[in-house]
Amino acid sequence: MKEAIVLAYSGGLDTACILKYLELQGYDVIAFVADVGQREDFDLLRDRALAGGAKKVVVRNLQREFVTDYIFPAVAGNAVYEDRYLLGTALARPLIARHQVMVALEEGAVAVAHGATGKGNDQVRFEFAYAALAPELAVISPWKDRTFLDRFEGRADLLAFAEEQDLEVEASEEKPYSTDENLMHISFEAGLLEDPAATPSWDMFRLTRALKDTPDEPLELTISYRDAIPTHLHLPAEGTSFSDPLELFIALNKVAGEHGVGRIDVVENRFVGIKSRGVYETPAGTVLHRALRDLEGMAMDREVLRLRNELAPKFAQLIYNGFWFSPEMDFIRAAFNKSGELIDGSVRLRLYKGNVEILGRESPRSLYDPELASMDVEGGYDQVDARGFIRVNSLRLKAHRVILEGAGQ
Amino acid sequence: MKEAIVLAYSGGLDTACILKYLELQGYDVIAFVADVGQREDFDLLRDRALAGGAKKVVVRNLQREFVTDYIFPAVAGNAVYEDRYLLGTALARPLIARHQVMVALEEGAVAVAHGATGKGNDQVRFEFAYAALAPELAVISPWKDRTFLDRFEGRADLLAFAEEQDLEVEASEEKPYSTDENLMHISFEAGLLEDPAATPSWDMFRLTRALKDTPDEPLELTISYRDAIPTHLHLPAEGTSFSDPLELFIALNKVAGEHGVGRIDVVENRFVGIKSRGVYETPAGTVLHRALRDLEGMAMDREVLRLRNELAPKFAQLIYNGFWFSPEMDFIRAAFNKSGELIDGSVRLRLYKGNVEILGRESPRSLYDPELASMDVEGGYDQVDARGFIRVNSLRLKAHRVILEGAGQ
Amino acid sequence: MKEAIVLAYSGGLDTACILKYLELQGYDVIAFVADVGQREDFDLLRDRALAGGAKKVVVRNLQREFVTDYIFPAVAGNAVYEDRYLLGTALARPLIARHQVMVALEEGAVAVAHGATGKGNDQVRFEFAYAALAPELAVISPWKDRTFLDRFEGRADLLAFAEEQDLEVEASEEKPYSTDENLMHISFEAGLLEDPAATPSWDMFRLTRALKDTPDEPLELTISYRDAIPTHLHLPAEGTSFSDPLELFIALNKVAGEHGVGRIDVVENRFVGIKSRGVYETPAGTVLHRALRDLEGMAMDREVLRLRNELAPKFAQLIYNGFWFSPEMDFIRAAFNKSGELIDGSVRLRLYKGNVEILGRESPRSLYDPELASMDVEGGYDQVDARGFIRVNSLRLKAHRVILEGAGQ
Amino acid sequence: MKEAIVLAYSGGLDTACILKYLELQGYDVIAFVADVGQREDFDLLRDRALAGGAKKVVVRNLQREFVTDYIFPAVAGNAVYEDRYLLGTALARPLIARHQVMVALEEGAVAVAHGATGKGNDQVRFEFAYAALAPELAVISPWKDRTFLDRFEGRADLLAFAEEQDLEVEASEEKPYSTDENLMHISFEAGLLEDPAATPSWDMFRLTRALKDTPDEPLELTISYRDAIPTHLHLPAEGTSFSDPLELFIALNKVAGEHGVGRIDVVENRFVGIKSRGVYETPAGTVLHRALRDLEGMAMDREVLRLRNELAPKFAQLIYNGFWFSPEMDFIRAAFNKSGELIDGSVRLRLYKGNVEILGRESPRSLYDPELASMDVEGGYDQVDARGFIRVNSLRLKAHRVILEGAGQ
Repeated sequence: MKEAIVLAYSGGLDTACILKYLELQGYDVIAFVADVGQREDFDLLRDRALAGGAKKVVVRNLQREFVTDYIFPAVAGNAVYEDRYLLGTALARPLIARHQVMVALEEGAVAVAHGATGKGNDQVRFEFAYAALAPELAVISPWKDRTFLDRFEGRADLLAFAEEQDLEVEASEEKPYSTDENLMHISFEAGLLEDPAATPSWDMFRLTRALKDTPDEPLELTISYRDAIPTHLHLPAEGTSFSDPLELFIALNKVAGEHGVGRIDVVENRFVGIKSRGVYETPAGTVLHRALRDLEGMAMDREVLRLRNELAPKFAQLIYNGFWFSPEMDFIRAAFNKSGELIDGSVRLRLYKGNVEILGRESPRSLYDPELASMDVEGGYDQVDARGFIRVNSLRLKAHRVILEGAGQ
Repeated sequence: MKEAIVLAYSGGLDTACILKYLELQGYDVIAFVADVGQREDFDLLRDRALAGGAKKVVVRNLQREFVTDYIFPAVAGNAVYEDRYLLGTALARPLIARHQVMVALEEGAVAVAHGATGKGNDQVRFEFAYAALAPELAVISPWKDRTFLDRFEGRADLLAFAEEQDLEVEASEEKPYSTDENLMHISFEAGLLEDPAATPSWDMFRLTRALKDTPDEPLELTISYRDAIPTHLHLPAEGTSFSDPLELFIALNKVAGEHGVGRIDVVENRFVGIKSRGVYETPAGTVLHRALRDLEGMAMDREVLRLRNELAPKFAQLIYNGFWFSPEMDFIRAAFNKSGELIDGSVRLRLYKGNVEILGRESPRSLYDPELASMDVEGGYDQVDARGFIRVNSLRLKAHRVILEGAGQ
Repeated sequence: MKEAIVLAYSGGLDTACILKYLELQGYDVIAFVADVGQREDFDLLRDRALAGGAKKVVVRNLQREFVTDYIFPAVAGNAVYEDRYLLGTALARPLIARHQVMVALEEGAVAVAHGATGKGNDQVRFEFAYAALAPELAVISPWKDRTFLDRFEGRADLLAFAEEQDLEVEASEEKPYSTDENLMHISFEAGLLEDPAATPSWDMFRLTRALKDTPDEPLELTISYRDAIPTHLHLPAEGTSFSDPLELFIALNKVAGEHGVGRIDVVENRFVGIKSRGVYETPAGTVLHRALRDLEGMAMDREVLRLRNELAPKFAQLIYNGFWFSPEMDFIRAAFNKSGELIDGSVRLRLYKGNVEILGRESPRSLYDPELASMDVEGGYDQVDARGFIRVNSLRLKAHRVILEGAGQ
Repeated sequence: MKEAIVLAYSGGLDTACILKYLELQGYDVIAFVADVGQREDFDLLRDRALAGGAKKVVVRNLQREFVTDYIFPAVAGNAVYEDRYLLGTALARPLIARHQVMVALEEGAVAVAHGATGKGNDQVRFEFAYAALAPELAVISPWKDRTFLDRFEGRADLLAFAEEQDLEVEASEEKPYSTDENLMHISFEAGLLEDPAATPSWDMFRLTRALKDTPDEPLELTISYRDAIPTHLHLPAEGTSFSDPLELFIALNKVAGEHGVGRIDVVENRFVGIKSRGVYETPAGTVLHRALRDLEGMAMDREVLRLRNELAPKFAQLIYNGFWFSPEMDFIRAAFNKSGELIDGSVRLRLYKGNVEILGRESPRSLYDPELASMDVEGGYDQVDARGFIRVNSLRLKAHRVILEGAGQ
């Protein structure tokens, strides 16, 4: 009996060739397809995989799990990589890998395989998740295998192999950049984008309208959170409301995209030490981040905010580098679950020509006290107290000055 | 002979009354006026101060020093308080205090005085700077003085005193919010803004146009940096260029303001433990931050960026809390001077309806290598190396899984 | 009816005078005495308080709670202030304050009072705990009250008042330093210790023997932990074992003290900005820290250890500064509870002449793998993998060198 | 003409075989020997290398540079890996690699080679230094080369090869553990130490006496620092003083070793993800750390100390992981140079039976003020100020309690 391998299959040229290549090496290949919200004909994919040598195809709809277990916690934890990237791809990988591993265990496979390149981040994310969840499974990663690399030196070799093996793949034309799409975002990199001075063309984008083409009327909306998790989206102009997490996220993606929200263009640092240019569209994610950060201003204690924000870049780095399933992530998430408690309330926003404007916010757990903040009324605050506060805090500074002067500085 | 006091004088109702109050207490009051770019009639201010009891008035134009020694280093160090506030007011205070202290020492004064409230941040910023620069000077802070507070319980008492003392002050009407303006920004707080759910009216803003009223044509511009400091602003459509720091900043303020860039509305945490709602307009500062962060993506080492960004919130907090002159600030700035080295290059941007879009960037010190980043060519990178990289990094994760399973988790 | 106040009463000159002073001001004073392991005659204390004006005396034995809820979690979280101080006093204060507040609420008191000085840390620890637990209670802190300070300018005034009021207090002689004792430690400060160059005399110490007088035979012991909490102390030479937390701690204090373990002498930074010299004896605490750190080496993941150790100084600072009951402490403890999970095992130690020597350790959750660590056998590790690991990690360094050379550095 | 390789040569079995192996492969092998203070017969080493195939031998005495440029800055920056290890080996590697690279460039070599194992830390330290200093040089690392690994599967193969090639090497017996010695320390790992529960035998140690055998009389000494760097060692009992850095360090090593100071036994985390057990003797380093930390208590500002100590574990990690020459290290050292300024003064210590006891300290830059610290005199501190200080700091805590109660917690 042949040994079985579960391959993360996207239907693109690479994984189609890998599927066949592995089959020819004598494996039973099970193609695993994750629906994380990318626009895709999954029936067609299934047919192609079977025609292309798969013993079996497993398609799983992971959209809801993606929103509730990955996107929402990431936003709650202020996960922003290198101050800008909202981690759309990085968040989907551990989810996909987790289900791929589940399929492998169910099917009694001996290995898991993926088609991610040896220069990128995704290989790391797949393989760390495999290691963390099922270290007993072998990992097959053709783009890091010398034999495979020598056999397929460029795209032409893949195309020739696909033709030779009669593999159905998408239009054989090379795309001007490579993309990854899911519910959270679409990313663009490589190809024309490799010149960091070059501006991407307006027609590249898919999830957000060009600012010139966005509506001339702003759109108001209200997002509510409970324990830092979105619970409600209200669009007063349309008279619609959403509280199902998946529906909420899809609806927000739609309106934010229409108003041109969520495009960024960055040069970022990959885990393998390479700088890389990426362009991203993250409409709903951008709005959810902005609104929750605003609500935290009201409802999160100052020192908790400080500690959370000190750990947030590490949280983002762990996600980016593929450590979603790791003991250090569990450590951070234990703290973040605590800081998310009682971050309740709603934020009123306006979307307009790429902008997410905060109009106001309300919270039943507000630590903001208008009386205390007021410059007109004392509100339980004795201004004389500030004298001692400042004088005590000044002691160090005065002592330091004396030393500097003693040292002739 | 009377003892002299140097008062930070703004010409508003508060400092006008304080000036007279101190004079009546038997001091020679020297009014110190700092020109940090606020729109103000400094001649009028001088006359009013003299008419209102000042023995002497000293007006200093600190605009250039503000840009080169405070704003530019703050932007270089990614100083953003609580993820959003660019610290316009907080940056000006130590500069003002420093010159106020210089005047006090020149004039042989025994004390420095200010009119900042006992609930706010500015008192702290003034007084920490005084303590750090001239601990021998006494500090007079009427709004933390029980006698003064009892004498002036509200605005009405100040107005009555002003009338009684024949003080010329601005329109006696109460403003709907209090503001602070300088080259970097204008801030709005208190008054109508005390309700955090209330949206400020469109006519409040002064440095930025409402998005609806911004030009329909985007504006392209290029900003160049050397060692992380802006050296050149080029506006191709206008055919103009600026390399003088002050002119550059003023020109950038103008175009960024026209395109509606740099408004934020936040609930923030004051150093005295009060949450406070602030609205800010920071046109040029916003653009400079965005552009430099982008350039850093190209030219700053990943791990340096990480360390710098771990310290940046502390840097911002120190600025916000008034510790510009402090040994811990010197510690951080020594490191930041190092990380700013060789951050050279230029960023091409587009301003449009409140958006700052990155169009491209170039750097003679670029660590970005298109060949290395490319998915098509190997570019000196052996993808097989990634196998060992990932496997070595996976060791911990595999060991952790084994332990979890041993513990029945 | 008189209003009631609950005073944290130690029976010393200060709190004896304060008790009477408050009674004379017309309050019903309830003396609250916490037994946190200090050597004290609590019956005598009770009698003195009643004789000295207390309406009621409440003595609570908090020893067990101190060990299980304060000392053990502090050790588990590697709480070491400024790299040396193990926080014996700082840990007891919130416990005492918590029970004092409970008594105040039970007794319907309107205020809580303490006798800590206005220059020290303990006032902060008491009052932050009061604020966090019962903000509705007033706080009476005579040593920060101008009237009281003017009435009692020095020790002589207190003694005179005590005599005048017929208060029974300890020997009227001034002690050469002030001390605070509990189960965890005894501290010495002030008095003769105020000269930081002066060595304290050998007869000052109480919990640890002078090294010269310790046994010439080392003592071996084994400490076991479960989830980072001590569960078992075994003393093979004596054939005794302890698993009750309080008994375990007391037994360990005894043997560690006999062997001279746990003395330190430091200049530390108080929260009020004053540097202060302290000498501490912390026998059992020192051993528990040392042993647990060793076990963590075996059983804690490297990156979790790193994150925990990054937060540990903040944890220590929060304890030192009195923020035991605070939202930021809850945030940190949520993470630390996670990192403590599965830190199971036992450490074999030798106590000898002040040294705590690690002899060996065992853990059922050990992440240490002798085969993997071995230089002789490969043990599932492919050394060739390290090549890729190093080469990938070197990319950044090589790129940086190229830039430095380009810049002529 | 043959290509030249510079090999880091220790004269042990491994590098002797590697030398010959490389020669047989057709290279001119230049043996580079660094004298970093290990006890070694360098003439013998030279002869052996030449007899064993080296074209040339370069021996460099790097002892002084090791002390001034590596050990002292590491101690100044509080470099302690995982809270215990003082990094003796990790500090020497970049120094050795730097000179090895210099020799390679001088000799026109095409590559540098070392004999460190593929499982350890030293390979990383060598190769990162090579990458950072001369990325153009090839790196030859036989223990990560599959061909070499297959040829030499164990110690027996090496011994057979040595015999076959007539190589002179030390006693052919296997040692019970592997060691690395230099001025700073000696390390022991592997072999018998691989069982973490096993106590090393008393006769393993070389730099420190067993506690039982140390003198019964304590030894007093005084160490002076300027800008955090040791400038003077005074041994009053012997009437000797040292101010030359190398002599100072050697003298301190001697007395500290005699008194049994500086042994540790830890399980640590290697950079390659393996946990490893190490035993170290670091006599002088331990004393210098202890004394400087004490002086910092007097002379370093509290907040600078905090920031420095937050970065110190990262500093230690960078050293441990081989990033001595890296941009992130330059960043940290820029800050640490600042924090070291004005850390001047002297510390009086007593060495006794493994203990380093602090007796007292003095500093011309002391921030410690006995009057301010005193509980008896006010010393320029108004205790009433503490009231405001505490009340302002309590605001957050009170607000948080109200929210918790509102939420029913």
